Amino acid sequence: MTSECTEVKAAIIALETQALELWNNGNPDGFMELSADDVVYFDPEQKLEGKRALEDYYNSIRGMVKVETYQMIKPVVQLSSDVAVLTYNLNSHSGGMIFKWNCTEVYRLNSSNQWKIIHTHWSLVQSDK
Amino acid sequence: MTSECTEVKAAIIALETQALELWNNGNPDGFMELSADDVVYFDPEQKLEGKRALEDYYNSIRGMVKVETYQMIKPVVQLSSDVAVLTYNLNSHSGGMIFKWNCTEVYRLNSSNQWKIIHTHWSLVQSDK
Repeated sequence: MTSECTEVKAAIIALETQALELWNNGNPDGFMELSADDVVYFDPEQKLEGKRALEDYYNSIRGMVKVETYQMIKPVVQLSSDVAVLTYNLNSHSGGMIFKWNCTEVYRLNSSNQWKIIHTHWSLVQSDK
Repeated sequence: MTSECTEVKAAIIALETQALELWNNGNPDGFMELSADDVVYFDPEQKLEGKRALEDYYNSIRGMVKVETYQMIKPVVQLSSDVAVLTYNLNSHSGGMIFKWNCTEVYRLNSSNQWKIIHTHWSLVQSDK
């Protein structure tokens, strides 16, 4: 792997981490700013298409998420020419409980050379194997 | 959108549909052949990295899936230079029950000009909104 690849992969993980830490304090602005206009979003309850729909949802839960600590587990970045697929497991500790997530974020490089999320898929892990 | 884009999007959906119809009859070979060596796989119970791990899993459940009918709902293909992100909802009817899925498949064009899956994320929809 070239050092440039390594740097891009680290940059993708850094973008995600930054947004996640805001998210964990009830602030969706990090993910909102990272999302592209054509973003497709899945969580355990819904599918949303387009940044406007996602913004409406994020704004509706602003201030409601409180995660005290988290672990981003084994992040993998699969890098293509203008797309980076980030996958990781996430343990979110909140109110004495641990929520275990499978996380997919597809980042695409835009014409301004910024990585934007075109797809998010959050799902809960249902059992430990 | 150019007609070439439209054709590629239809081709991606056709690849997925073909593999899904085998899958629904207990045959994982379609998804196995479509998967790239570096595939990352999520389902509600596990994360698997690499085609070998995925093949072991697929072979372990060969013959066990029986879906009588299915609906692929609102598939979206987000096409970049060499990556296509396919997202859809899936209703699988099996033994009188309906399983509702959020589905992500990230396809990447390889050097032989074939689309291969580099990431699969299956999750169950937990409620209807």
